[in-house]
Amino acid sequence: MIRFDCDYTEGCHPRILEALTRTNAEQHPGYGTDAHCARARALIREACAVSDRDADVHFLVGGTQTNATVIAAVLRPWEGVLSATSGHIAVHETGAIESGGHKVLPLPHTAGKLAAEDVRAAVACLRADPNAEHIVQPGVVYVSQPTEYGTLYTRAELEAISAVCRAAGLPLFLDGARLGYALAAADDLTLPDYARLCDIFYIGGTKLGCLFGEAVVVMNDAVKPGFRNLMKQRGAMLAKGRLLGVQFETMFTDGLYLQCGRNAVAAARRIREALLQAGLPLAFESPTNQLFVTLTRAQSAALERSFALGHWDATGGETDVLRICTSWATTPEQTDALIAAIRAL
Amino acid sequence: MIRFDCDYTEGCHPRILEALTRTNAEQHPGYGTDAHCARARALIREACAVSDRDADVHFLVGGTQTNATVIAAVLRPWEGVLSATSGHIAVHETGAIESGGHKVLPLPHTAGKLAAEDVRAAVACLRADPNAEHIVQPGVVYVSQPTEYGTLYTRAELEAISAVCRAAGLPLFLDGARLGYALAAADDLTLPDYARLCDIFYIGGTKLGCLFGEAVVVMNDAVKPGFRNLMKQRGAMLAKGRLLGVQFETMFTDGLYLQCGRNAVAAARRIREALLQAGLPLAFESPTNQLFVTLTRAQSAALERSFALGHWDATGGETDVLRICTSWATTPEQTDALIAAIRAL
Amino acid sequence: MIRFDCDYTEGCHPRILEALTRTNAEQHPGYGTDAHCARARALIREACAVSDRDADVHFLVGGTQTNATVIAAVLRPWEGVLSATSGHIAVHETGAIESGGHKVLPLPHTAGKLAAEDVRAAVACLRADPNAEHIVQPGVVYVSQPTEYGTLYTRAELEAISAVCRAAGLPLFLDGARLGYALAAADDLTLPDYARLCDIFYIGGTKLGCLFGEAVVVMNDAVKPGFRNLMKQRGAMLAKGRLLGVQFETMFTDGLYLQCGRNAVAAARRIREALLQAGLPLAFESPTNQLFVTLTRAQSAALERSFALGHWDATGGETDVLRICTSWATTPEQTDALIAAIRAL
Amino acid sequence: MIRFDCDYTEGCHPRILEALTRTNAEQHPGYGTDAHCARARALIREACAVSDRDADVHFLVGGTQTNATVIAAVLRPWEGVLSATSGHIAVHETGAIESGGHKVLPLPHTAGKLAAEDVRAAVACLRADPNAEHIVQPGVVYVSQPTEYGTLYTRAELEAISAVCRAAGLPLFLDGARLGYALAAADDLTLPDYARLCDIFYIGGTKLGCLFGEAVVVMNDAVKPGFRNLMKQRGAMLAKGRLLGVQFETMFTDGLYLQCGRNAVAAARRIREALLQAGLPLAFESPTNQLFVTLTRAQSAALERSFALGHWDATGGETDVLRICTSWATTPEQTDALIAAIRAL
Repeated sequence: MIRFDCDYTEGCHPRILEALTRTNAEQHPGYGTDAHCARARALIREACAVSDRDADVHFLVGGTQTNATVIAAVLRPWEGVLSATSGHIAVHETGAIESGGHKVLPLPHTAGKLAAEDVRAAVACLRADPNAEHIVQPGVVYVSQPTEYGTLYTRAELEAISAVCRAAGLPLFLDGARLGYALAAADDLTLPDYARLCDIFYIGGTKLGCLFGEAVVVMNDAVKPGFRNLMKQRGAMLAKGRLLGVQFETMFTDGLYLQCGRNAVAAARRIREALLQAGLPLAFESPTNQLFVTLTRAQSAALERSFALGHWDATGGETDVLRICTSWATTPEQTDALIAAIRAL
Repeated sequence: MIRFDCDYTEGCHPRILEALTRTNAEQHPGYGTDAHCARARALIREACAVSDRDADVHFLVGGTQTNATVIAAVLRPWEGVLSATSGHIAVHETGAIESGGHKVLPLPHTAGKLAAEDVRAAVACLRADPNAEHIVQPGVVYVSQPTEYGTLYTRAELEAISAVCRAAGLPLFLDGARLGYALAAADDLTLPDYARLCDIFYIGGTKLGCLFGEAVVVMNDAVKPGFRNLMKQRGAMLAKGRLLGVQFETMFTDGLYLQCGRNAVAAARRIREALLQAGLPLAFESPTNQLFVTLTRAQSAALERSFALGHWDATGGETDVLRICTSWATTPEQTDALIAAIRAL
Repeated sequence: MIRFDCDYTEGCHPRILEALTRTNAEQHPGYGTDAHCARARALIREACAVSDRDADVHFLVGGTQTNATVIAAVLRPWEGVLSATSGHIAVHETGAIESGGHKVLPLPHTAGKLAAEDVRAAVACLRADPNAEHIVQPGVVYVSQPTEYGTLYTRAELEAISAVCRAAGLPLFLDGARLGYALAAADDLTLPDYARLCDIFYIGGTKLGCLFGEAVVVMNDAVKPGFRNLMKQRGAMLAKGRLLGVQFETMFTDGLYLQCGRNAVAAARRIREALLQAGLPLAFESPTNQLFVTLTRAQSAALERSFALGHWDATGGETDVLRICTSWATTPEQTDALIAAIRAL
Repeated sequence: MIRFDCDYTEGCHPRILEALTRTNAEQHPGYGTDAHCARARALIREACAVSDRDADVHFLVGGTQTNATVIAAVLRPWEGVLSATSGHIAVHETGAIESGGHKVLPLPHTAGKLAAEDVRAAVACLRADPNAEHIVQPGVVYVSQPTEYGTLYTRAELEAISAVCRAAGLPLFLDGARLGYALAAADDLTLPDYARLCDIFYIGGTKLGCLFGEAVVVMNDAVKPGFRNLMKQRGAMLAKGRLLGVQFETMFTDGLYLQCGRNAVAAARRIREALLQAGLPLAFESPTNQLFVTLTRAQSAALERSFALGHWDATGGETDVLRICTSWATTPEQTDALIAAIRAL
């Protein structure tokens, strides 16, 4: 059985394992105050082309934790977060945001993406409502890049959303759990762009070859004070913070982060071509490491004899949408095997 | 200016004012432990045909408070409440439920009403999801009677929802902020029926001639322990609880509660007929004290010169849906005046 | 049985009942947007010698609700509230503050009162701790005036605490659930003083002759935005807000609020004298409407045959501390009866 | 600089690193559903002498997260957790418990330990209070073993607390962040004892040679449902759960967990002897891996030139209490160096 069901089926990139092994016996103070974290922060700021005055960088363990902590840091009690109905925080985090006291305000989406105009209109509508005091008011906008559907905001699209947010006085928070795949797939948006357009965003490690870890970049000064206290309160401050420092230090040395992203995107493109050649319809176009293909029950059963795939939407009919997910760890042999199986359908 | 915009524009029914005046100098212990509360509880149990073993009765001040307290009493942290997207808790309580840590799980509705089959299907879907641990699980079902659109569940409909809930092991919570108008408008559902079909429901006073107050009837034994502690914690335990006792004692003496409901329904029916005769389309049929009529801008401007009306949905076009709300306090003269104005449009 | 166990055993002052009766049939919009609330706000600002630019005034229903709402409005998630261990929020609100996510940081007290130096030292210590990120940081200071022991901060004491708070950048929140008794008992602190020294305080109605109601005065601009949204979210926005407007309008007309306070203080002073003459020791001196007297079991049993008293601290030995509480409603006859019984011990 | 300031200054035990390296390329499903987690659960159940019917075992990342998740799983909204004032949840988790809505109810302690009689008396007092509805009621008892002061409950002491809890119907939750050091230091309490006496406890990995990780053992059936949902909601479900499985699998193979504990305890005993021989007073006796010694400023400055130590309580005078913490990683050479420095004071 070869797993293509998600991008966190292996441990970590060998270079990270080497770095952890090399530094294992070093003694460091806890909670991210060590030299590796300091260097990882510096490397990330450099990659984002920002100074330490511009950006605070924090390392957290996982995505749900990061989303909940960031949103708690940004919002006042009566405010909510605008998100696509498909947003990870809206559907797949067991209500972590609500557990923190905040409503997820749903917005329509196209293949996982918000439209700037929808954001603008929703904010205007919520604020202008004669009963505005009785309605959760928007306090932050959440987008993911790539989205949960593997799709990407273009530079123009993200600039438009950022402009709407700034005009409305709303921080823009970008969930980059898979940001490396976005960086690998698109030429028109770089880390400095994300730093420029977002108030807070994160560079995901868990799904890109780290054992775990998300690097949060906080650009908005209002969100900076108390962030570490909040991390500790929410159980998001790792005792052996050095583990996060070592991992991100490695990721941002010699372009490893981008390299991990590229490996996945290249594999996904090969598989995409095979799907199209086999006449298997994609549920929507996704340029990153996730492919969504519509298969008959017989086809999916055939593939799943040898491959673990993700079950996305059960259409309830004769076909299902399955997710094929490549990763930093996908080998050419694994890709070849899947392509062969696709051709044999 | 005569107000038809909501059903809490006046103080309280004169008999309540008399009772408050008559008992004003009495000395009572606080927090609902007084003799008036005891008698009010007994009268409500009698009206519901239940014993004090069957039902706990609590008096709270307002609807948002009541909804939030009941739902907090029922749910475990990872559970949410199923509600119509039009449910009061979903749209008009500034995220009170989320503030308490719980997601409102949205369901489609028809003129404010859930369908039993939709409830059943949603529960089945949420529970069967392969990612169920990552998805907020349903812990209670919320309905309002009458709904926010003034519509009513029939006995058959409510029995079907109740049966679905029991089969699924989910408590059914009925928001009866306007329950008196439902009792007045429908013959087929009585207080004993609500006690039989619901796990928790409340008998609204604020919108039915009390100064304030909601009487919560808890039938489900699992929800009973700690309820008063929770009331206190949420600021929902009135120091001078006797005020609630006196009001509900009065309401459940000589049929005052029902009488308040009937006054409103009768007035609404006269206005409804006038609207139909004038060729003004109802947005949907509502048999209780709320009418929703589609008016042109000119028509609504004309009416609003002399009458306060509620603005419901701005269609964004040439017409608006306006809410006309009668109440226990609506006088024949006020109704006559509105009907005359409708005819003059 | 005559009740001296608390100051909310009766309904309301007759002038309030008259006002509610007189205005009962008036039609008003809901939620505190009516003309009575507007006038009550103006009267309160006038009494505090502040402009509407200086102070927002909000009307809530009860004390627990008010404390929880104000503290939620002030604090960020990782902050707590400094309070005497005897503070109402620390002991008698079923954890309402914690329920909102915040720790009550305990401070020592003398007969219910904080010392400015203790506040200063605690803040310095919490902030300087090498583990400060792991410790709840102070975000607001809570005092009550009179305290839960009936004692009063002098002007000098409150000025010292206020100065410490301002030097530390911490808002000062004063719980005035019984503020009228403080105003009646002390000459050296007036409403304009409270407005000058506090960031937020409230003028209690429930315990001073209203049916219910607390008037929150917000001086600190940072706490003003969103306060009404938060009220709604926490079920603290009364639908028929006019009831609060009418009550405070009455209280602040012709000096009724102060008159209610004076009645209680005068009665308490007569009882205090009788206790001392009878050789019954006061647990501590309290110049307002609450007296705390140490009685043998036999003495308390004798008194409690005819009078309801409050049981404060059970010493576990042969004596108990009992609370005798007068109020705006205490009549000379009731006071005479209690004094006679004290003399007969 | 050699660090003796805490027990999480290194990475992980070499055997864990080996296991992570060996399994790194394996593909596994996420979230703790993999074969390594299954085997680690089996090994832990075996070590605790319980069946899979008796005990659920969950793997979380860190201690604060674990404490907050367990307590949220146990308590109803109006309940609090009884803890020593020195308990980690009471002082060093930035209010994580309060952030989840629950008060930490403080109990006195002796060198970090609760007395069964104090627990019994506190519960009786809180429940019997005439204002019990206004007071946070106890819902769980929290102890740590070893305590934050390195001290240990004896078998008799823990049995007494367990008996009090069961008599009161309160679950007992034991924080075993350093449980391995307790197991190494005391003969009279074994894992099966903890499983027998506690309702929930955890076996700490972070401070005992894992990179991170805490293994929660849930014995109480009432706490089992929904625990994984709650983990996900609180960001405590690691995506690559296999990392926790592999680590605990290794720890519970060939007695590694106990061996890690013993190394630290042996080193601590040697240091303790050196301190006593040097006439340096211990603030209290602690048989595990933490020593608390009272030093003059000159002495601590001398030691801290070469060793990182923990600053515990600043007495404010001429002396400080410093914490010396050994660990699974402490080498004989490091211990020798410290002892030499102590002798040279």
